[in-house]
Amino acid sequence: MKALRSHRCGEVNESLIDTVVSVSGWAQKRRDHGGVIFIDLRDASGLLQVVVDPDAVDAFAVADTVRNEHVLQVTAKVRARPEGTTNSDLPTGMVEVYATEINVLNRSDPIPFQLDEDDVSEAVRLKYRYLDLRREQMQKIFRLRSRVTKYFRDFLEAENFVDIETPILTKSTPEGARDYLVPSRVHAGEFFALPQSPQLFKQLLMVAGFERYYQIARCFRDEDLRADRQPEFTQLDIETSFMNEDEIMDMMETMIRDLFKITLDVELPAEFPRMTYADAIEQYGIDRPDLRNPLKLVSVTDLVKEEDFKVFSGPANSGHGRVAALRVPKGSSRLSRKEIDNYADFVGNYGAKGLAYIKVNDLEAGRDGLQSPIVKNLSDAALNDIMLRVEAQDGDLVFFGADTAKVVNDSLAALRNKLGEDLSLLKGTWAPMWVIDFPMFEKDSTSGRWTSLHHPFTAPKLDQLDELSSNPGNVLSRAYDMVLNGTELGGGSIRIHQTDVQKQAFTALGIDDQEAEEKFGFLLDALRYGAPPHGGIAFGIDRIVAMMSGVDSIRDVIAFPKTQKASCLLTDAPSGVDKTQLRDLHIRLSASAQAAQNATQEEGESS
Amino acid sequence: MKALRSHRCGEVNESLIDTVVSVSGWAQKRRDHGGVIFIDLRDASGLLQVVVDPDAVDAFAVADTVRNEHVLQVTAKVRARPEGTTNSDLPTGMVEVYATEINVLNRSDPIPFQLDEDDVSEAVRLKYRYLDLRREQMQKIFRLRSRVTKYFRDFLEAENFVDIETPILTKSTPEGARDYLVPSRVHAGEFFALPQSPQLFKQLLMVAGFERYYQIARCFRDEDLRADRQPEFTQLDIETSFMNEDEIMDMMETMIRDLFKITLDVELPAEFPRMTYADAIEQYGIDRPDLRNPLKLVSVTDLVKEEDFKVFSGPANSGHGRVAALRVPKGSSRLSRKEIDNYADFVGNYGAKGLAYIKVNDLEAGRDGLQSPIVKNLSDAALNDIMLRVEAQDGDLVFFGADTAKVVNDSLAALRNKLGEDLSLLKGTWAPMWVIDFPMFEKDSTSGRWTSLHHPFTAPKLDQLDELSSNPGNVLSRAYDMVLNGTELGGGSIRIHQTDVQKQAFTALGIDDQEAEEKFGFLLDALRYGAPPHGGIAFGIDRIVAMMSGVDSIRDVIAFPKTQKASCLLTDAPSGVDKTQLRDLHIRLSASAQAAQNATQEEGESS
Repeated sequence: MKALRSHRCGEVNESLIDTVVSVSGWAQKRRDHGGVIFIDLRDASGLLQVVVDPDAVDAFAVADTVRNEHVLQVTAKVRARPEGTTNSDLPTGMVEVYATEINVLNRSDPIPFQLDEDDVSEAVRLKYRYLDLRREQMQKIFRLRSRVTKYFRDFLEAENFVDIETPILTKSTPEGARDYLVPSRVHAGEFFALPQSPQLFKQLLMVAGFERYYQIARCFRDEDLRADRQPEFTQLDIETSFMNEDEIMDMMETMIRDLFKITLDVELPAEFPRMTYADAIEQYGIDRPDLRNPLKLVSVTDLVKEEDFKVFSGPANSGHGRVAALRVPKGSSRLSRKEIDNYADFVGNYGAKGLAYIKVNDLEAGRDGLQSPIVKNLSDAALNDIMLRVEAQDGDLVFFGADTAKVVNDSLAALRNKLGEDLSLLKGTWAPMWVIDFPMFEKDSTSGRWTSLHHPFTAPKLDQLDELSSNPGNVLSRAYDMVLNGTELGGGSIRIHQTDVQKQAFTALGIDDQEAEEKFGFLLDALRYGAPPHGGIAFGIDRIVAMMSGVDSIRDVIAFPKTQKASCLLTDAPSGVDKTQLRDLHIRLSASAQAAQNATQEEGESS
Repeated sequence: MKALRSHRCGEVNESLIDTVVSVSGWAQKRRDHGGVIFIDLRDASGLLQVVVDPDAVDAFAVADTVRNEHVLQVTAKVRARPEGTTNSDLPTGMVEVYATEINVLNRSDPIPFQLDEDDVSEAVRLKYRYLDLRREQMQKIFRLRSRVTKYFRDFLEAENFVDIETPILTKSTPEGARDYLVPSRVHAGEFFALPQSPQLFKQLLMVAGFERYYQIARCFRDEDLRADRQPEFTQLDIETSFMNEDEIMDMMETMIRDLFKITLDVELPAEFPRMTYADAIEQYGIDRPDLRNPLKLVSVTDLVKEEDFKVFSGPANSGHGRVAALRVPKGSSRLSRKEIDNYADFVGNYGAKGLAYIKVNDLEAGRDGLQSPIVKNLSDAALNDIMLRVEAQDGDLVFFGADTAKVVNDSLAALRNKLGEDLSLLKGTWAPMWVIDFPMFEKDSTSGRWTSLHHPFTAPKLDQLDELSSNPGNVLSRAYDMVLNGTELGGGSIRIHQTDVQKQAFTALGIDDQEAEEKFGFLLDALRYGAPPHGGIAFGIDRIVAMMSGVDSIRDVIAFPKTQKASCLLTDAPSGVDKTQLRDLHIRLSASAQAAQNATQEEGESS
């Protein structure tokens, strides 16, 4: 059987001059020039210029009918391009091929958008995803993604990790988001859940003695997709035995550093800084600071406790309040009154009731050198102490947050990011770091109950085991998050490997023995049979590839993503199903869903 | 933070003599010998002998409490084993370590079965899968599986394939098995389906111009698990553009040949034989013959048409009948009357109403030399012709099947396999092959409608396009199956890449335009926009690893498999869920399922 091509387009070069080749690909562009037809033929390897002369009668007749995106097979002789027509931007730019035969393998209707068009709506891109993916940038992204996952596998296999698949049809897992459920046909009234992560299975694999496991695992969360989330996403899931957190962090750091070096030729720092959760919150208001941004939060809570100004002294004296400053060097001249007002609106989104600020005009002039609606409310001593602590200089602008610690941290962290962007303050391209020493628990503001900051299997610091019951709010965990440019790339921890400690953790979380047994009985069982000390991490592949590709949305790095409404515009999933299918699965639609479905069907029939 | 080990157990060898190491692992065995305690310490790398002398007072006290499968951290000095106690079977068998400190990292309750126990029930193995996986054979299987998938990736990346993930939450796909459904919370009354394969997505990726795609993809089928099937299974999914079937088969053959060479050091044949579907059915009664078995079916239909013996002449003269012989060399003396009767029962399972046979005692004696209940019913001419055609020799035994072709093929193919096993006829260890030239369609015996032998996207032979409408039953497809030892390893085809051909195929299958549009509209759309000629293949990873591991069940090569009743004995999935979860998903249980759930709950409460 004859081959459809002897060479890929991008491989045709000067070494082939005077030989006859056959190539196949898409007509990217056709132009007629002086009675001769030129076709830019594109395949996955690149572009090749095809010349069709009227002397090649049959080929010319075919070429004359060729439209953009037709699929062609071309038999042609390779020749050097005439002087002055070479194109050094193209690997094939020194040659062209002179067609003797053209075969249209498939035609193309006019495509709904041009491949080099910039502002195609996302809805159109997703509906015609197979055309969107033809675009050069998308081709690059998915080839990069493939290289990234291959790199991770190469690295981990070399370190003796074993790739093991865990179930997709499984039991509800404890990450806390909503599960996707799958009705069982065999077991009436029962459901599988799609995994939010392979967490428990990977711990069981450690009990099984594999010592080093990895998987590039699909995970599922049925959440409202306000943020840049997807119902299904992919994580690089890793678990190890007999390694402590330092060893795990070192190895993962090397893995990420080498990834950037090998796939992007980027040098990340030889050592990623490690920062405690407490320091991150204190200095950045957030547990994933963007260290490219030089701005820092400075607490002035203690300096304003005695002030009459209730806006400051109120939060300063409440148990959960915080007053913090954010100094913008030279901000006084860089930010207009209108811009400052806009920032006040902006922090309102994060619960702040206002945005106090001081323009530092002339420090030596004392109170008179400070321009601000709030200066009159603060004592000389407080103003002086604040200016000293934030290391103010003439021309600076200092923003303040004063509220519950949560509101201050959320709003100033967001303001810091926004200022960094608006004022182009970011230094360097890549700023990786680790955040460590997280609290084990945080109090749910609604229920007042302790919840896990990571998950219920995270181990507490070894010297705080006693406090698990007596003072859970004080216990730090053996967790670590890798942060890059303000985004969490991955998070992990040493896990609890002893039954009694796991039970104490459950107790602290208000999970009683019966619930623990029902939900996690198999884990508690497993910990009884020689579970080794173990810990791991999971990286968000979609996010990593998006950052490496310089795109904002993970939808751009997922071949067939869902919309923010969790539907697929290409296949029209989800969709209605036959009643018999539901009957086989022992389920019925709720009355309102049934009504909605009936309406849709009638609409379909009447249209 | 102190490391839990300086070396892995299997790495401790003579080069470390006199150095102090720390090792961690499981106490595989403890024995007391002359007042000294010996512990075989096991980690993923191997076994190490730990010696604990009463002189090491603290370590000895701890060692005295150690039970099997306790997890230990041991600090010890490496020394040569005393003469006469070395063990050349172990990589660490020349040394032992003399413990100075032992730390029990975790205890183990007595385990429910011993790791070297042979006849543990599968139910117990699956419930305690984390212990079952600790067994040496299981560790080997999953490390092999990881190497196999890694090998595939290495091979394909080197050939410019791009690894692309396709959705798990998607639309019902056309493989024909029952779908697993996932109710949508956002779109009331609508459902996602879990993919039976990425077939349509991989074709769309070809339309997108990726040219070479692969994925190790999870697939789902909600089937009754009578055979060795799993609700979720894994396939190596491959698709290419601009390659014809010969090129694809050649490349895949190389991939599988190199896999066996690299991972098992096994040489497969330099060229896999290719056999048409028609020949396979004619000679083996099945489209996946085990070529290690030298027995072949021989048609004698034409020889018995004129016979009075209705058992033979009936099927021979019916349109769908077949009379075939299966000669067993030297079978006359190797098979007793009782065994032959058992085979008659056996073929009954495949619909055969009996199993005629002839013992060839003395060919030269003609009819008198043939011993059989049926000889008297056949003419001399027929007997003579049959003996000539099957190339009978004295001492042979010839079985016959006479019925519809389907019953004859099914029953003799099964008999052939069974005889091959029972009489140890198999030659060689590995017999790979290709089956090609499949029919496009087969007639469903119930509905009388044409159905796809592969799937509706399989391309017909180029020279039979015209017959798609006029004579579909005659059209062969461009499909190919790779078969190894009677098992289908993988199957694929060149796909239809033109809208009009795809529509004709749908029409032949009785899929009208509206149904085609509803189910596959996005594919038909995509084919309109410059779809390249493309084709691919999918290999069953579970089956390949099972064969390479020498285990019968794919449950042994899946870390956390489901039972034949599609449940997980470890996690107890599927299980009941809260009413609120169902309400969120706009579904209710059917009345009977609700009753079943209530009964289960009451049982739980009263127990």
